[in-house]
Amino acid sequence: MEKPLILVTNDDGITAPGLRMLITIMKKIGDVVVVAPDSPQSGMGHAITLDTALFSKKMKIDLDGIDEYSCSGTPADCVKLALQEILPKRPDICVSGINHGSNSSINVIYSGTMSAAVEAGIEGIPAIGFSLCDYSWNADFEQAHDFIHSIVTQALANGIPKGTVLNVNIPKLTKNEIKGIKVCRQARANWKEKFDKRTNPMGKDYYWLTGEFELLDKGEDTDEWALANGHISVVPTQFDLTAHHVIQELNTWEL
Amino acid sequence: MEKPLILVTNDDGITAPGLRMLITIMKKIGDVVVVAPDSPQSGMGHAITLDTALFSKKMKIDLDGIDEYSCSGTPADCVKLALQEILPKRPDICVSGINHGSNSSINVIYSGTMSAAVEAGIEGIPAIGFSLCDYSWNADFEQAHDFIHSIVTQALANGIPKGTVLNVNIPKLTKNEIKGIKVCRQARANWKEKFDKRTNPMGKDYYWLTGEFELLDKGEDTDEWALANGHISVVPTQFDLTAHHVIQELNTWEL
Repeated sequence: MEKPLILVTNDDGITAPGLRMLITIMKKIGDVVVVAPDSPQSGMGHAITLDTALFSKKMKIDLDGIDEYSCSGTPADCVKLALQEILPKRPDICVSGINHGSNSSINVIYSGTMSAAVEAGIEGIPAIGFSLCDYSWNADFEQAHDFIHSIVTQALANGIPKGTVLNVNIPKLTKNEIKGIKVCRQARANWKEKFDKRTNPMGKDYYWLTGEFELLDKGEDTDEWALANGHISVVPTQFDLTAHHVIQELNTWEL
Repeated sequence: MEKPLILVTNDDGITAPGLRMLITIMKKIGDVVVVAPDSPQSGMGHAITLDTALFSKKMKIDLDGIDEYSCSGTPADCVKLALQEILPKRPDICVSGINHGSNSSINVIYSGTMSAAVEAGIEGIPAIGFSLCDYSWNADFEQAHDFIHSIVTQALANGIPKGTVLNVNIPKLTKNEIKGIKVCRQARANWKEKFDKRTNPMGKDYYWLTGEFELLDKGEDTDEWALANGHISVVPTQFDLTAHHVIQELNTWEL
């Protein structure tokens, strides 16, 4: 049987340890092509590059013959460029990550990792974003190895339901501490922003965005609950953003 | 009765004609504060600024006493900054736009205009994004005046259903040609990307992203259908991205 073609990307940039680990795992499953940003793109959401040109460069990072390309754009740009210009054929799956930091609950909205997966999903390609709830650059990605292998294998075997991509978050635990994998819904949460206001030497005010995560959801079927209780969370995420259940209510408005 | 406090923002930048028209309409409804990007942010999706500081400046653009602030960040940054640092109290509604160009169907995913509305929605503030299906800088925004006034008035009177924001798109027609306002679902569509590959004088390849819009949905209840048939489309848009209907299927996987 032909090996599956796997497109690997991320938002932390082509040299990030999380991406390197994802490549290592994917090489055991199929033929890997990497197209990833040449610099970190965290918090880029679903940005695309419209006003400048994109540069792309073939790179040799690992020494065992996989094709890697850096791209000057966003994660969504990387997927578009990979599909149109770089890959020899449509990939069987696109995996994004492993992100350095959580993309659970409301973070999915701001996530460059997930925007790459969503971009592939829009094109009809099965796609998964992986994130580890540990922001440090030297985080231990090894713990997640077997779980990621299992999720991607199952996705290739079963297909991912149409119109959805998977948002996978991994708690910061050792492999033995992880209790398993749970399919969840996105928890209701937000960030209580604080701006740290300063004045520069020229007398101009500026702000640093900081904030505290605020969970507003007591459900035990959420990604936040799963992560807090030692599970890997899998949330099916869709790009039809229509709130179908309120159309009826809006139709009572006098417009 | 106290006048409602209205936060106005956009993604085309604080000087854009579409924003100016939205301010004009909103001044008839309430007290207006503008916090908008200092430069165009189209295609920024739900990006936020994490790695650089934000600059904000009080500006006088109109001469009749409304407060306007430019911000060096993305549309989502503008809303965060407005809510935390600039506004005297929580606004009664946040309106974003009028965007120069469509944000219907899959464009909502890439839209800076809608990301500002979504950001307000996450904070529990009623929010609406307005877009005109005309990319030109000197587009005629006057035609939409009464319709936008009506939608915002109804939203203030009825409230917008929790967990949703409204995505309003206006066809490029004269006022008399517009048949009315239709509540719709997001059409299934995507962009057939093409990259225009070139080589710079230094021999380096680069790409311009171009593409053609591809409608994949024959429904007559979609935003694309409404727009093509002379209606203004209103799509309730949610930020719980969970595809609840596939959780059951994923629970059959062997993970």
